Amino acid sequence: MIKVGIIGAGRIGHVHGESISKFVKNATVKTIADPFMNEKTEAWAKSLGIEKTTKDYHEIFNDPEIEAVLICASTDQHSPLSIEALRAGKHVFCEKPIDHDVNKIKEVLDVVKETGKKYQVGFNRRFDHNFKAIRDAVVAGKVGKQQIIKITSRDPEPPSIDYVKISGGIFLDMTIHDFDMVRYLSGAEVEEVYAEGSVTVDPEIGKAGDIDTAIITLKLDNGATAVIDNCRAACYGYDQRAEVFGTKGCVAISNDSDSNAVYSCKDGVIAEKPMFFFLERYMMAYANEVNQFVEAIVNDTPTPVNANDGLQPVLIGLAAKKSVEEHRPVKIAEIRAQYGL
Amino acid sequence: MIKVGIIGAGRIGHVHGESISKFVKNATVKTIADPFMNEKTEAWAKSLGIEKTTKDYHEIFNDPEIEAVLICASTDQHSPLSIEALRAGKHVFCEKPIDHDVNKIKEVLDVVKETGKKYQVGFNRRFDHNFKAIRDAVVAGKVGKQQIIKITSRDPEPPSIDYVKISGGIFLDMTIHDFDMVRYLSGAEVEEVYAEGSVTVDPEIGKAGDIDTAIITLKLDNGATAVIDNCRAACYGYDQRAEVFGTKGCVAISNDSDSNAVYSCKDGVIAEKPMFFFLERYMMAYANEVNQFVEAIVNDTPTPVNANDGLQPVLIGLAAKKSVEEHRPVKIAEIRAQYGL
Amino acid sequence: MIKVGIIGAGRIGHVHGESISKFVKNATVKTIADPFMNEKTEAWAKSLGIEKTTKDYHEIFNDPEIEAVLICASTDQHSPLSIEALRAGKHVFCEKPIDHDVNKIKEVLDVVKETGKKYQVGFNRRFDHNFKAIRDAVVAGKVGKQQIIKITSRDPEPPSIDYVKISGGIFLDMTIHDFDMVRYLSGAEVEEVYAEGSVTVDPEIGKAGDIDTAIITLKLDNGATAVIDNCRAACYGYDQRAEVFGTKGCVAISNDSDSNAVYSCKDGVIAEKPMFFFLERYMMAYANEVNQFVEAIVNDTPTPVNANDGLQPVLIGLAAKKSVEEHRPVKIAEIRAQYGL
Amino acid sequence: MIKVGIIGAGRIGHVHGESISKFVKNATVKTIADPFMNEKTEAWAKSLGIEKTTKDYHEIFNDPEIEAVLICASTDQHSPLSIEALRAGKHVFCEKPIDHDVNKIKEVLDVVKETGKKYQVGFNRRFDHNFKAIRDAVVAGKVGKQQIIKITSRDPEPPSIDYVKISGGIFLDMTIHDFDMVRYLSGAEVEEVYAEGSVTVDPEIGKAGDIDTAIITLKLDNGATAVIDNCRAACYGYDQRAEVFGTKGCVAISNDSDSNAVYSCKDGVIAEKPMFFFLERYMMAYANEVNQFVEAIVNDTPTPVNANDGLQPVLIGLAAKKSVEEHRPVKIAEIRAQYGL
Repeated sequence: MIKVGIIGAGRIGHVHGESISKFVKNATVKTIADPFMNEKTEAWAKSLGIEKTTKDYHEIFNDPEIEAVLICASTDQHSPLSIEALRAGKHVFCEKPIDHDVNKIKEVLDVVKETGKKYQVGFNRRFDHNFKAIRDAVVAGKVGKQQIIKITSRDPEPPSIDYVKISGGIFLDMTIHDFDMVRYLSGAEVEEVYAEGSVTVDPEIGKAGDIDTAIITLKLDNGATAVIDNCRAACYGYDQRAEVFGTKGCVAISNDSDSNAVYSCKDGVIAEKPMFFFLERYMMAYANEVNQFVEAIVNDTPTPVNANDGLQPVLIGLAAKKSVEEHRPVKIAEIRAQYGL
Repeated sequence: MIKVGIIGAGRIGHVHGESISKFVKNATVKTIADPFMNEKTEAWAKSLGIEKTTKDYHEIFNDPEIEAVLICASTDQHSPLSIEALRAGKHVFCEKPIDHDVNKIKEVLDVVKETGKKYQVGFNRRFDHNFKAIRDAVVAGKVGKQQIIKITSRDPEPPSIDYVKISGGIFLDMTIHDFDMVRYLSGAEVEEVYAEGSVTVDPEIGKAGDIDTAIITLKLDNGATAVIDNCRAACYGYDQRAEVFGTKGCVAISNDSDSNAVYSCKDGVIAEKPMFFFLERYMMAYANEVNQFVEAIVNDTPTPVNANDGLQPVLIGLAAKKSVEEHRPVKIAEIRAQYGL
Repeated sequence: MIKVGIIGAGRIGHVHGESISKFVKNATVKTIADPFMNEKTEAWAKSLGIEKTTKDYHEIFNDPEIEAVLICASTDQHSPLSIEALRAGKHVFCEKPIDHDVNKIKEVLDVVKETGKKYQVGFNRRFDHNFKAIRDAVVAGKVGKQQIIKITSRDPEPPSIDYVKISGGIFLDMTIHDFDMVRYLSGAEVEEVYAEGSVTVDPEIGKAGDIDTAIITLKLDNGATAVIDNCRAACYGYDQRAEVFGTKGCVAISNDSDSNAVYSCKDGVIAEKPMFFFLERYMMAYANEVNQFVEAIVNDTPTPVNANDGLQPVLIGLAAKKSVEEHRPVKIAEIRAQYGL
Repeated sequence: MIKVGIIGAGRIGHVHGESISKFVKNATVKTIADPFMNEKTEAWAKSLGIEKTTKDYHEIFNDPEIEAVLICASTDQHSPLSIEALRAGKHVFCEKPIDHDVNKIKEVLDVVKETGKKYQVGFNRRFDHNFKAIRDAVVAGKVGKQQIIKITSRDPEPPSIDYVKISGGIFLDMTIHDFDMVRYLSGAEVEEVYAEGSVTVDPEIGKAGDIDTAIITLKLDNGATAVIDNCRAACYGYDQRAEVFGTKGCVAISNDSDSNAVYSCKDGVIAEKPMFFFLERYMMAYANEVNQFVEAIVNDTPTPVNANDGLQPVLIGLAAKKSVEEHRPVKIAEIRAQYGL
């Protein structure tokens, strides 16, 4: 039984707290730390059987009983906390992205190597039943040689403008999951990116220097081409589809709904909308990812999403950003060179 | 936090043990009792944090800390254990059916009334997201006046012949869930039954005095007609469909699969088979039903499936059995009269 | 090139006129006869290149150029016109049912035998792409040993009360198609019928001595059981589904729509309703059936739906009627005995 | 009743000949011309009631009874025959593309203007029930402000290498239909194109100077972005999907199959593959387009796909070609400037 500490008691900290207590057999949360710790959070923690709540995350790092840390703080804290945790001898599960700054991610990679501790990045979609079904079919050879990969990822509603401003832009905040999916589904690396961006949801997003709609084309080193379409708002809910098409077949996934009930009436044949957003849609994926992180510790095996898997989508995201800015295709090698990678 | 005891550590006892520890916030399993308690079960109980294991269920009845009991023993023990538990002052969740013998069910009903304790019967399908979606639509008035109700219920594989012999027959063992669904989806009572039975799966089932395939037509007191089709074996898996058709529309549900991935290849456009069997398909329903049982205790509200809900499907099942034997429609009133109901 | 005459220029006469001119390569309509022939019908006939219109169908029987006759008159005229046409040396395509009276159908069978002319009954659904796909799968052995056959057949709106009164009742008018489908899909004969009927659509239908909703269970001579559910009205349109379930698999068909467009919006994920009614849904089936009738003449092969195929569903329909009246299962043998069959 | 002549008795000439005789009420084919006219074609023409066959298309131009001409010859003949036909006073339906050479298309546009005759280009997909359902929803305002348009278009098998060499390249031969669909579905014009091409089907196609797989991103003048994915081969058949996503909803269409039968068996839940290729999939669309061409003549209204609609996709195709060659986004204005448009 692994004892873990959670740093950050916001939305995603809650998700992990709940899912560890429900679904992760070999771990318990001992301590949860948050600078804004309050009574409500304390009560919630108590209801889950979490032993300790604190405003000071050092209590987690200093606790010799705690073997692993989940970093659920704000993005700018991901890399410094990762390094501090690793150096304190803890295994680390870090929410995505590790950082917006490649140099800081490089530091984390160095410290992971140096300490030999387990490190996993929170790309939860890899642990979703549907996306996994595509990956399994690809690995089983059912697709043959890959030719075209398609990912649709649309949010039900845009984040606040305040969040947009610190988000690192759509590519590092939202599309980063899709970049990870392209790598996961294909098992290949991205070589070049062309991104077309526009503002079709809210002009304020444009004023904040970001885009809210994008089509991104990616050339992969296995000869396939991937295309992602993103939008920050879809009135029918969270749209999460994907397909991998190859010489032997095409595997496609569609959205999940709360039920598969279909209502036939004078207005049509009506099925339910997709599950509202990521917390609903990926509830089990959040549990599965931490489960596998814990298993990697228990069995001393590699984590399923390592620090390099955290780096690559950031490089792709930076290439996409540059592509929109300079209105041309951008090679990943160009971004790597910039950072001496 | 309610402390519960589980009597019976077989398949369904395991299901409830697991799901209470994962999903039921306001309850913990304190003790699990089984006459064949062994090391493996003890280890499993320990892994879930269950305090105590025993061969003697009296330890549960005698434990003043334990407020509620889940009866997961063999069917012939359901009614005596229910009565003993109620008299010991425990709330009772009893697996279906309460008994094959209506007189014994009547005794249980009397003791429930006498003790005023909560009593819930394990008709898990009522707590499934799909079936619930139909019920919600009916209650919301989306179906209008009900006209036709259809239920398809086919198992992936037949039970052993040994089980068939003690099962009480297909109607009390398998169709009983569908009878409950007719009552649940419609909110109406069954008045008359006509059942057509045959042996198409395994002649041994016929030799054991049972049938393995059936079409059952039911007249309801709301003017609608229901039809159930059953088979003990379907090579493509557990087939669980239903629809309610009325003057304003038709709500239909189909099967759930492990993923919604679709593989297009030279052989066709191939989706996954339904989830294998009830343990997979109704995992969350098992959790939901116990959750609501616990909530009924905590809030002192009626249980969602009471003792009468346990009685009615048995009456319908006996009518169906008689219908096959006498090759004619049988009124429920006829069965009730037999038992002075 | 076969020259045909059509008797009856009502709705179904129009359907056949149009579809022969569009889709039936080896036939042309020379003459159309209707006692109520009017200018509008004459103009329509002219636009299709039909040579002659008349109020007197004898002009068709007396025309030596005309080899085949389509009988599209009212039901009570089907059998006398069939006999007259056959005796005039014409091949006959007769709309369903041949007659409501078994004795009159027997006469037609005798005259078919006596004259050796081709005779086909208008069970159009056999020529529909979806129903044919089930039949093809059954014949190909994909279903294995048949166990359960299900047919849903619901009309978008009830016929007029005047029509109901002369319709012969729901079983001979509407369900007759489903009885034919049971025989067609299974390739087996019906041995026994149990029918449950109710009035849920319009009390006037009940006052007219008919029912508008029915569940019919049929035992087949191949060991399978079939169940049909009927309703004279479904607010979402013409509902035409079927499935054949057996030891090797289950083949199911659903409704056709004008397009497969799906609209995802804040109200749900909305597909189109089924095609409105039989004229829309079975347009191509009407063409196919006449095409095969003409091919049977040209190649001197048996027609795909012969006179006996016209008789059997009537026997089943009479059994169903008796079952409702006497509230018991009725054997087809019982009906046959009544008519010395 | 309009009399038409068909020039070219190849595959598409046959399609139009058949569909006019079956489905186009107000037209008959009087003459069909083909330099390789042979007995087989003559017999086929006779079976359809086509009066005259000839090797010399001038017989069509010189026939005062013939009001309209369908040009179904090889692509290089489309523009000269169009001009000759228009000057001979005929209305013209011309298969796509008008020409690969923009200057020749310009000449055709001039002659159309000069003669005032009807001119329609054979973009058949506009007349398909599914694509039309999207367009109807867009026009009805159900999509709101358009944001993303997606088109998947994959052929079941590549054309011969000989054909590839004279095809004008994938963009002018295959994607040209998708470019037209982008314009049709959106009602907007394309401003810029970025195309990513690869050879994943057959290296011989690469050697012939073409690509067989492409992702094309298009910026539209209504603010939306469109993305097309193409492949010359898909083992599961002709893949023709599309969606238009906007602020009020998303309308999506999927493939049509010969039947909607679904076979559930031990290998999965198997639906039919899409209809094989364009002749099967768009049979009715070919009939509808000629029907509307004839109606435009009869009612003297504009044709639904005019000469400019023939020009635009060629400009987009040339931009796509340039984009692949120069590996950069290309504005349509750049291509227009090249041709003084």
